[in-house]
Amino acid sequence: MKYAARLGRITPFRVMELMERAKLLETAGHRVVHFEVGEPDFVTAAPIVAAGKRALDAGETKYTQSLGIPELRRRIATYYCELSGVDVSEQRVVVTSGASAGLLLLTALLLNPDEELLMADPGYPCNEVFVFLVNGVPVSIPVASNQDFQLVPRDVIDRWGAQTRGILLASPANPTGTMLRRETLRDLLTVVNERDGFVILDEIYQGLVYDDAADYRTGLELSDELFVLNSFSKYFGMTGWRLGWMVVPQEAVDPLARLAQNLFISPSSIAQHAALVAFDPPAMKIHEARRAAFEKRKILLQAGLENLGFNIPVNPSGAFYLYVDVSHTGLDSTDFCWRLIDEYQVATTPGIDFGDHDAGRYVRFAYTTDEKSINLGLARIREALTDWGT
Amino acid sequence: MKYAARLGRITPFRVMELMERAKLLETAGHRVVHFEVGEPDFVTAAPIVAAGKRALDAGETKYTQSLGIPELRRRIATYYCELSGVDVSEQRVVVTSGASAGLLLLTALLLNPDEELLMADPGYPCNEVFVFLVNGVPVSIPVASNQDFQLVPRDVIDRWGAQTRGILLASPANPTGTMLRRETLRDLLTVVNERDGFVILDEIYQGLVYDDAADYRTGLELSDELFVLNSFSKYFGMTGWRLGWMVVPQEAVDPLARLAQNLFISPSSIAQHAALVAFDPPAMKIHEARRAAFEKRKILLQAGLENLGFNIPVNPSGAFYLYVDVSHTGLDSTDFCWRLIDEYQVATTPGIDFGDHDAGRYVRFAYTTDEKSINLGLARIREALTDWGT
Repeated sequence: MKYAARLGRITPFRVMELMERAKLLETAGHRVVHFEVGEPDFVTAAPIVAAGKRALDAGETKYTQSLGIPELRRRIATYYCELSGVDVSEQRVVVTSGASAGLLLLTALLLNPDEELLMADPGYPCNEVFVFLVNGVPVSIPVASNQDFQLVPRDVIDRWGAQTRGILLASPANPTGTMLRRETLRDLLTVVNERDGFVILDEIYQGLVYDDAADYRTGLELSDELFVLNSFSKYFGMTGWRLGWMVVPQEAVDPLARLAQNLFISPSSIAQHAALVAFDPPAMKIHEARRAAFEKRKILLQAGLENLGFNIPVNPSGAFYLYVDVSHTGLDSTDFCWRLIDEYQVATTPGIDFGDHDAGRYVRFAYTTDEKSINLGLARIREALTDWGT
Repeated sequence: MKYAARLGRITPFRVMELMERAKLLETAGHRVVHFEVGEPDFVTAAPIVAAGKRALDAGETKYTQSLGIPELRRRIATYYCELSGVDVSEQRVVVTSGASAGLLLLTALLLNPDEELLMADPGYPCNEVFVFLVNGVPVSIPVASNQDFQLVPRDVIDRWGAQTRGILLASPANPTGTMLRRETLRDLLTVVNERDGFVILDEIYQGLVYDDAADYRTGLELSDELFVLNSFSKYFGMTGWRLGWMVVPQEAVDPLARLAQNLFISPSSIAQHAALVAFDPPAMKIHEARRAAFEKRKILLQAGLENLGFNIPVNPSGAFYLYVDVSHTGLDSTDFCWRLIDEYQVATTPGIDFGDHDAGRYVRFAYTTDEKSINLGLARIREALTDWGT
């Protein structure tokens, strides 16, 4: 059978094979330490689960409005006010089946074939697939540690061409955990605006921030013309429910509604009703406790790896990832990951899954596992380094 | 802001405006009869709801495998055996976030820009949007009542061109409720196979069948090379959960997994765990009782409309729709629908929402409302016809 050409451009995630290996090891009775998992290890907070069950009891099992139930759009708008005092009209809030659906709607809305979207390398690996879907061209721009692994205005100025339509930013970013500084974001907005382009800002790790480096809470403080992607998956711990949202410019709401009606009908009714309580104090208290747990783990893992001689060039402000330079081991990062899982039952994600730029140098460690496991993982890595003589 | 060209090709559903009007009328205290709604009026069956709640209690709130949890893929495969004795490998079952996600995955897999997908007019209006998404060309072929509003081999032979890649069929179909005969399906498969094309068969109304006209239960009885779309929304009454599935040729599973990982991550964990019991006797008994209720409503509405002089050219075998010729009223179908909602508070969907072919003649009536409402609707239409002097 002949498949569409875009299939040839989608590379499988290396980490999937690695996870297969991890599963085999576990089946054989080994204890595996998981630093590869991109979702919180916590189950959804009890108040949200309870709200989901109430929604089921109340028979909320039908299609909803394509853009989401009005109560949830309103609650999200209010959340922005609580978070940073920014005034977001509920009309601009679009509830989606996960941030994935949001990004799909945006590439569908904004990109014709052969039009370019600029993005950082390293970055979230699925981003370019949404561009391939609509036959656009993802332009990956190498971003170095000295620019916090984030796009800077100079990158955009240099790479903007006749076919370029916009840029995709992420803050905090996956796999690096770094945030865009307010000043950088402001300048990027100016540069793109001068070129009549659009800016998509991925804030799906919003809330999972661990220091005061962040001098803003959301890009919406800076502009109403941004397309902001968000999710109930990470800070709100609702991965399996598949729910996210966007805040978009007012004029984009109607065309997005037309796309959403046709492509998704509606997000999950149950997830939407459950998410209504995600911003209220009982759930927020749990989310904050989890954020604190992530922060402790971050400090533990970061110090542990640095003690072992690993370089983490940018102290990540958020998400639950460390992007770790493993070059002092003398191993390419993919080899490093394979030897670590095969010989020491520690699972990590090689840089190659996030792009090409310096990918052989870096490994992503996710601290989505408890402190005991982190300590066990560190001990095993210490042993590995000794055995390997690095 | 400049949007992608595909946006210009997506026409809003006329029925959305009509539903807005209906809502206004209801807010003003009027009782509206709803013949426009494309989802069952029943809430999800209690055993499925209970399983959803158990899944929540068990903490099933995380991402799952992209193709669905193995237990559900296996259960769906078994269902085909129970349904028609056909042997479907669980490996070929792909669980999706609604049939919408399934169709999106298929157009992403199978269509390059400018490649054509043949489909019937009238048909499900969103189909062509999935083709526009990937910059393909939907080719709508007028299908007449004398061919059961379904594609026949001659249509495909006549319209197949250098850029044509496949055909999309639906049985039972929306908006007509008609089924493809086994012989027609077999011949269509042969014709497409001779042209190295693919066949997508939408079976999302499977189970909602009311007569013995169907001489097969699933297209999978005829071929392993079909892409079959299915859904938990209609017969299984799970619209708001957003869950569906596909059965695909074995060789297509891996490329679809790559697409699904990137574009959707996974379907809802809660919906999947709930759906596990959808095929078991306690839930099936409820689904069957609802099927029987739909059948009674169908007979009532069909006879009532025919008594009022409306022509329903093909007796629909399935789904919950009647595609009704309103030409004897002297009104164009869109005018008919607007006058009916404005003057008599009866909501229906004009043919124009399903294509161009004879659209001015036809109106879709959905019997997703109870018998009392159907009788009230019929009485109001009788009054309308008298008042209008038709």
